[in-house]
Amino acid sequence: MSEQIRATAEVTKQVYLARRSDHYWRVTIDHPPLNIFGPDTIPQLNEIITALETDKHVKVVVFDSAVQGFFLTHYDFLARLEDTTRLPPGPTGLQPLPDMLVRLSRAPVVSIASIRGRAGVVPGGGPMARLPRLMGRGRALEVLLGADDIPGDLAELYGYVNRSLPDSDLDAFVESLATRIASFDKQAISETKRFADVASLPPDFEIAPEWDVCLASIARPAAQERIRMLMERGFHRPGDVEDRLGYYVGQLGR
Amino acid sequence: MSEQIRATAEVTKQVYLARRSDHYWRVTIDHPPLNIFGPDTIPQLNEIITALETDKHVKVVVFDSAVQGFFLTHYDFLARLEDTTRLPPGPTGLQPLPDMLVRLSRAPVVSIASIRGRAGVVPGGGPMARLPRLMGRGRALEVLLGADDIPGDLAELYGYVNRSLPDSDLDAFVESLATRIASFDKQAISETKRFADVASLPPDFEIAPEWDVCLASIARPAAQERIRMLMERGFHRPGDVEDRLGYYVGQLGR
Amino acid sequence: MSEQIRATAEVTKQVYLARRSDHYWRVTIDHPPLNIFGPDTIPQLNEIITALETDKHVKVVVFDSAVQGFFLTHYDFLARLEDTTRLPPGPTGLQPLPDMLVRLSRAPVVSIASIRGRAGVVPGGGPMARLPRLMGRGRALEVLLGADDIPGDLAELYGYVNRSLPDSDLDAFVESLATRIASFDKQAISETKRFADVASLPPDFEIAPEWDVCLASIARPAAQERIRMLMERGFHRPGDVEDRLGYYVGQLGR
Repeated sequence: MSEQIRATAEVTKQVYLARRSDHYWRVTIDHPPLNIFGPDTIPQLNEIITALETDKHVKVVVFDSAVQGFFLTHYDFLARLEDTTRLPPGPTGLQPLPDMLVRLSRAPVVSIASIRGRAGVVPGGGPMARLPRLMGRGRALEVLLGADDIPGDLAELYGYVNRSLPDSDLDAFVESLATRIASFDKQAISETKRFADVASLPPDFEIAPEWDVCLASIARPAAQERIRMLMERGFHRPGDVEDRLGYYVGQLGR
Repeated sequence: MSEQIRATAEVTKQVYLARRSDHYWRVTIDHPPLNIFGPDTIPQLNEIITALETDKHVKVVVFDSAVQGFFLTHYDFLARLEDTTRLPPGPTGLQPLPDMLVRLSRAPVVSIASIRGRAGVVPGGGPMARLPRLMGRGRALEVLLGADDIPGDLAELYGYVNRSLPDSDLDAFVESLATRIASFDKQAISETKRFADVASLPPDFEIAPEWDVCLASIARPAAQERIRMLMERGFHRPGDVEDRLGYYVGQLGR
Repeated sequence: MSEQIRATAEVTKQVYLARRSDHYWRVTIDHPPLNIFGPDTIPQLNEIITALETDKHVKVVVFDSAVQGFFLTHYDFLARLEDTTRLPPGPTGLQPLPDMLVRLSRAPVVSIASIRGRAGVVPGGGPMARLPRLMGRGRALEVLLGADDIPGDLAELYGYVNRSLPDSDLDAFVESLATRIASFDKQAISETKRFADVASLPPDFEIAPEWDVCLASIARPAAQERIRMLMERGFHRPGDVEDRLGYYVGQLGR
């Protein structure tokens, strides 16, 4: 896509907000075929996160996916890097992607990820600061540096997710938890979450440098060559590379 | 119960200390029918915690319950709030309830909770500061904000308890662990615990504001209305509301 | 062994380094019959850790044992305490044993412990600072103060190890993970690990005093008497005491 076409093209809507009630919102990622997110996704998500921060009534938000097999996969490596880097920093002073993730963590609502299908880590968005606090040092290093797919049951064992459920139970579980939380007092929710944040959120100054290092890392020839090899094999297109990305990432350097 | 009767009534003994040996103590909560604790319980527990802090010989203490089905359930919502708030702060400068819990954490003895039956969180006593450090942010938020009953096996998965055991194995396991620890050197126990405290206890300044926010929260009309609704349905009396409090709490706001 | 003989004796090689490739090293502890480590082991391990810190190519190192039934068991209580205490501090300013362990944690390579057989904690090396961060306060206190053997499956539940695998699967799993990591970019590995370190490593000032307290503890008459009793029963010799050390440690003070 040439720059001119891109600049004037209508940006596809990729993220949909549905208000199940004043108290309970759903955010659905619907960017087929792979739910890849990129510079176009950021303002759309940002608008929703701003609404979650400021709405007087919302208590709980569920993130899910409308795309079979993919929750929210990796960043868009076909987008020009400048489209990401030229975005101005967000209210926290962090770059837009980590800014949004940090603000969602602190928003006065409970967020639940109903993960069905592949989900990617968000390098630069804080996983190095977050995962060791979530699952302990050893397992975090395995997840970050093994860079392999983590099946649901292992994710549950590691504390990466709260629970791994049979596919047929997931929707009912999430619905029950979300409607339950939506029945509680918003002030009690926001105060409780704020206290838990103090005890568990990494400070922003730990997250900030991850972004710069991540961008610098992607720009290095070694990474560019790996991305090129992955592209040749089918990266960014429906198929086996996207379905078993962990496996293919492990083949590139051999 | 009128104020005058209450002021002159003999306070029921609710907490019993048994010295199995110089080194191994048992604290049994016996306040039937529900092991509700309140302002009357605090001085009784405080006396025991002071003894645990100062006794030269005790190495391990097991807390258990003499009441079928309940370990230590929620706070006494029938007691006048002033009976709690007028208690002077403890040695840490915290209010008596969080003060006791913090002091037990730091006491130079190992404490083991042998939980058989329902156990309530202690809002204001530090769960927002403690749980994210114990089980990670995501699960702590689910426990705190889902506010639902947590079965033993889920508690074990989440690291909320060390182990979930079949009822028939619990006593033997606890007895074996307690007598084992009681056979070790008290100085080694207290020094080891003190180092672990540095690495794991939240600072008191994180716990202090939880208390004020908790009290303010209870005093709000929204909470008072919920407590009133729960009382109508059987709260504070043996029966289904106390047996399945998580369920009933989830019904109030619908 | 007299001091003179010891001073002039050739020190047995106990730790072997094999370079499977430029990127993937193996460190094998081979000090039969029990893989006890002591003052003689420290310089040998230190040399390897220095190589891991400075080598330009190594990305992953696996530690394993050549001794059936023992990975790396306890410290050498037959060695004279002075042989340990007179060793000068390492580059971190910590004593050599905690110094090495801290430096391995920070080294720009991934280290994997392939534990087959008994492994001992390293008092003075930082377990009080590390374990509560790894598995939460309650379980860390049980491990440290219960001082009992922890079977593999319990270690996995507690997050003490990443995974517990059937013996027949261990080698293939470790080999696969190590060769996978060895295929990645060294700079990405070292940068990622450094960020995770910030989020998860205890500060050195928490580890330093553990060493002094540990040494003072060993020197106390109570500990010396226990060590003497253990020695009488077979400590430091192949047999039931070493095979079930947790059990025997629990018998001494009864």
